[in-house]
Amino acid sequence: MALRLGLRLLTSSGFSRLNSANLQVPCTACRREIASTGPSLHPKASSDLNSFVSRSHTCGELSSTDIGQEVTLCGWLQFQRQDLFVVLRDFHGLTQVLLPQDELNAELKTLLSEAPLESVVLVKGTVIARPPGQENPRMSTGKIEVQVKQAQVLNICKKLPFEIKDFIKKSEALRMQYRYLDLRSSQLQYNLRLRSSMVMKMRAYLCNQHGFVDVETPTLFKRTPGGAKEFVVPTQEHGKFYSLPQSPQQFKQLLMVGGLDRYFQIARCYRDEGSRPDRQPEFTQVDIEMSFVDQTGIRALVEGLLRYSWPNNKGSLPDAFPVMSYAEAMSSYGCDKPDTRFEMKIMDVTTLFSTVQMGFVQETLGKPHGCVKAIRIPEGEKYLKKKDLDSMMETSKEQYKQHITPVIVKSDSSWRSPLQKYMGEDLQKALCEASGAKAGDILLLAAGEHDTACTALGKLRLDAASKLEECGVPLRSPHDYHFLWVVDFPLFLPKEDNAQEMESAHHPFTAPHPEDMGLLSTEPEKVRGQHYDLVLNGNEVGGGSIRIHNANLQRWVLEQVLKEDSSLLSHLLEALESGAPPHGGIALGLDRLIAIITGSSSIRDVIAFPKSFRGRDFMSSAPDFVADEVLQLYHIQMVQIDCEVIQNV
Amino acid sequence: MALRLGLRLLTSSGFSRLNSANLQVPCTACRREIASTGPSLHPKASSDLNSFVSRSHTCGELSSTDIGQEVTLCGWLQFQRQDLFVVLRDFHGLTQVLLPQDELNAELKTLLSEAPLESVVLVKGTVIARPPGQENPRMSTGKIEVQVKQAQVLNICKKLPFEIKDFIKKSEALRMQYRYLDLRSSQLQYNLRLRSSMVMKMRAYLCNQHGFVDVETPTLFKRTPGGAKEFVVPTQEHGKFYSLPQSPQQFKQLLMVGGLDRYFQIARCYRDEGSRPDRQPEFTQVDIEMSFVDQTGIRALVEGLLRYSWPNNKGSLPDAFPVMSYAEAMSSYGCDKPDTRFEMKIMDVTTLFSTVQMGFVQETLGKPHGCVKAIRIPEGEKYLKKKDLDSMMETSKEQYKQHITPVIVKSDSSWRSPLQKYMGEDLQKALCEASGAKAGDILLLAAGEHDTACTALGKLRLDAASKLEECGVPLRSPHDYHFLWVVDFPLFLPKEDNAQEMESAHHPFTAPHPEDMGLLSTEPEKVRGQHYDLVLNGNEVGGGSIRIHNANLQRWVLEQVLKEDSSLLSHLLEALESGAPPHGGIALGLDRLIAIITGSSSIRDVIAFPKSFRGRDFMSSAPDFVADEVLQLYHIQMVQIDCEVIQNV
Repeated sequence: MALRLGLRLLTSSGFSRLNSANLQVPCTACRREIASTGPSLHPKASSDLNSFVSRSHTCGELSSTDIGQEVTLCGWLQFQRQDLFVVLRDFHGLTQVLLPQDELNAELKTLLSEAPLESVVLVKGTVIARPPGQENPRMSTGKIEVQVKQAQVLNICKKLPFEIKDFIKKSEALRMQYRYLDLRSSQLQYNLRLRSSMVMKMRAYLCNQHGFVDVETPTLFKRTPGGAKEFVVPTQEHGKFYSLPQSPQQFKQLLMVGGLDRYFQIARCYRDEGSRPDRQPEFTQVDIEMSFVDQTGIRALVEGLLRYSWPNNKGSLPDAFPVMSYAEAMSSYGCDKPDTRFEMKIMDVTTLFSTVQMGFVQETLGKPHGCVKAIRIPEGEKYLKKKDLDSMMETSKEQYKQHITPVIVKSDSSWRSPLQKYMGEDLQKALCEASGAKAGDILLLAAGEHDTACTALGKLRLDAASKLEECGVPLRSPHDYHFLWVVDFPLFLPKEDNAQEMESAHHPFTAPHPEDMGLLSTEPEKVRGQHYDLVLNGNEVGGGSIRIHNANLQRWVLEQVLKEDSSLLSHLLEALESGAPPHGGIALGLDRLIAIITGSSSIRDVIAFPKSFRGRDFMSSAPDFVADEVLQLYHIQMVQIDCEVIQNV
Repeated sequence: MALRLGLRLLTSSGFSRLNSANLQVPCTACRREIASTGPSLHPKASSDLNSFVSRSHTCGELSSTDIGQEVTLCGWLQFQRQDLFVVLRDFHGLTQVLLPQDELNAELKTLLSEAPLESVVLVKGTVIARPPGQENPRMSTGKIEVQVKQAQVLNICKKLPFEIKDFIKKSEALRMQYRYLDLRSSQLQYNLRLRSSMVMKMRAYLCNQHGFVDVETPTLFKRTPGGAKEFVVPTQEHGKFYSLPQSPQQFKQLLMVGGLDRYFQIARCYRDEGSRPDRQPEFTQVDIEMSFVDQTGIRALVEGLLRYSWPNNKGSLPDAFPVMSYAEAMSSYGCDKPDTRFEMKIMDVTTLFSTVQMGFVQETLGKPHGCVKAIRIPEGEKYLKKKDLDSMMETSKEQYKQHITPVIVKSDSSWRSPLQKYMGEDLQKALCEASGAKAGDILLLAAGEHDTACTALGKLRLDAASKLEECGVPLRSPHDYHFLWVVDFPLFLPKEDNAQEMESAHHPFTAPHPEDMGLLSTEPEKVRGQHYDLVLNGNEVGGGSIRIHNANLQRWVLEQVLKEDSSLLSHLLEALESGAPPHGGIALGLDRLIAIITGSSSIRDVIAFPKSFRGRDFMSSAPDFVADEVLQLYHIQMVQIDCEVIQNV
């Protein structure tokens, strides 16, 4: 009692500052979210976090109901308050540990109050109630503290490369170099645990609910024909290389031929893209394939999968996701992955311009696919400065060679626009009516080839949204999750470097739309594929297709349309004529999906040990030089830098 | 009715032969096992195998309770019986489909009776009872058949490279080249489905029951110091390579430092061992790490894991697995992975030989660790021929330089043995008593250095068991599953090429046994490690350890004992001094474990697309040559064969 009294005296001001201890943990908000969503991160409420180990409780679970219990806690020293108490942290939360104030236990007190922060300690003691008025309602353990009886420093934290507080503000490179420290942050703990829990639920849905078989496929494989971006792996056989595949595409199809019926895999995939922001040389996809299925079946499966695995605290998903054709996505949003969380859709106003006597407009409309498109930025006059508009027009010109004409609708409904002098009042009114433009709105108009005009306006739609959001207009809430299927993609596209030749829009195994089969030999560019993309908030998070199961059709596509050497895929063609069932599937980009759900700005925040955008691991300095003996074992040597420069010149 | 009658007349002999249709599927026994264990392969009984697809039922589920139902089945043509019926197969079973015999449906009949076997068909029809007496009790669907009303050949099986029947007998190379056909066999379907289901249960145990977090770790990493057998992956940065790690060892430890607390991963690992039988260049381990745990904790966790995920039809596992020291395993079984399904243990009979006047025995006993060891082969005289014994002695001499002296105890208890003349009747009797040898038994004796004598006898123990089993003596039932922990391994071993230097028995991160800490600087060769192996039926199926969490100790082991350059592991050392909790873990070899459980003779039978023992994929011909442009991208070129030969000479 004396102890308690003494303590209360000593800490009369201290306790209010204790609450600020939380602030030492990065992202207090997230820690609270962990606490509040704790159960949802452990699919079974009965999940025992203390089995097999020396602690009796985590640092996040003690409450008033435990008062009087003898407990053992293990954790990191998060905070020390004079010699009065320390705060212990683990993945589950924080617990306040009361230090003894009597002479007899001076050593114990010194041990805990003088060990460096972030040291690992084991503490045995009794759960007691905090004195009235000193509870912390923001901490899940805020009603209790543990009166320590025994303690042991399990590992001293000798020195950190910097103050944890500073660390948070440091560059991402530093956070990646000391990833094991960054992993202690509540944000990364939350992200990785949510990822694990969501993947577990996906597995339960596929495996337990719908009889899918989890099959591991090789990652040391043969180079795909035309498979740029595939890492190669030298072998001890002279001149022979494995390749790290970009997806298990061939294997999943072969599994269907093998009668596996329903396959899934959380599959590691590889892509050597050199430096690209927010891409990783290895990434993970939820890979699915089914026999005897059509597009509707796959879509229903994936919708069910996402609903089943969706985090409890992220709202609920609709029973069926909207479906939009590629053509509609392009004409209304100017891209194949529309962000449907907000409007500002692209409108066609071509007919209004048929009589407008502007040279370049008439010229444009005379060309194939010539049109005039518009987007309306509500209250744009208020939020967009002249330089914003100029910059958007510049973007459009530079990136798409598309001229943009702005119209600012003034409060008296008159226009400020280069167009004004070319359009009479009636036409101006008609355009405002057609586009819904009101006083204060801005219209951005693009006259040009359909896809170019749409793509440019699609980009400006997103740019304008960002600008509006910067001004505090809520448009794209990170708490809204708008899934969308985009379908009816073209099966083939003209090659970028040679428009006379065709290449697959996705991959050569996608089946043509049944209605377009007749066009395959005559107008292949008009054939739609049975491909579907899953879009979430303007990001592509999945894609798949019904595959070609007929060997003749597959051979025809490869040889006659794509002009490829089909012998490189002879094993697949042979498999298709050995009793291949109709089949189709999908792959979901797990890293991206989890990043969006957790509101992370980069997929690096949902990967335990990510690489930099140049593919480097800052912790271990991978990739690195290897010894000559290793190269010899694989019969390879480095090309001399000089020679290479000459070759490249 | 007429149809039915006609059919019965037509098939009076046919039906009895139908049963033999089963035999066309490889391993009828296994197919039955699939049928009988069906539910256990789908963790939840409610698993819906027909969701999202065009069939209403699988080919394995219709029964008398479905009579009268209209159903849609999809499957492979397994068997055609004249024009009377066909048998449809899928992953779940077989269903007999009755063909129409009326003129009106002649086309339908022709379609199904003339399509090549292994073609994929969709059939709609009515479930009817088989006529009395024509039920097939060995088929789960043997009481019914489906009267077809509509059918569609979804894909014609144009030609198989060989008759399916022949295929089964063909070489494994052919089976691997046409793996998609082999996958249709009930044995592979069973193996892959059991693997998937068991892994799913492991995940549920770890993730749902015990709060483990499934974390993916990189496979493109930095080469481990001394990491022979690691594949390298060239990057576009001149001279720099990733390495494909042999295990996530470093990452799992770093996750503990990062406070993840409980990690698991079904991890893909890589090892470039060139040609070794029954090894794969990529393999899978169940990788586990925990903080604040000791050996007992990890063992209890793994025992619980295996009990939880163990297939229902494979018996039950004991509550705790036996634990044996490495020393005991060596002296009683002559190896560190004893097969404890049978006795024939190694016995020490040294004291009996102290007075035997045989020169080499006395010489042996005078040396350090000299001893005489014996195994007893019960009824050996009956089962082992002279050439068997000779061959065993030869093996021992060649592989271990260990001379073996046999003793055959004859029916009158006299001996046939080179030893006879050196041992008096009393000693002979004493040896028989000590070893339990009875008339007809054979003793194999080895005088030599302890480990050599034990290792040799350990090998002969297994050889003798094989011989006895060939003669029909049941010793090692494939239906018995004897798990065993082997502990207290030495922490260091003398290097094979230089006995003056030490190397880690397992890896440099294993913590010393606390009782042996004092020996670390004085007699490191006597230090036991906190390592544990899990052995199943004489195979190592797992191994792990409590790790060193103290940076100073880790540095000391690396620098002072192993004489390695600790700077190559500076990131790990730095992590250990940044607040690393005590931690430990284990990795289970999933391929081997599943192979033993399914009774497969090779791990290739539990991997969907395995490689040959030379690391080849016979289906796609990986590894393969790659184009010069690819090598250029990675700044590498092949060493000229000639140069290399010269270098190697």
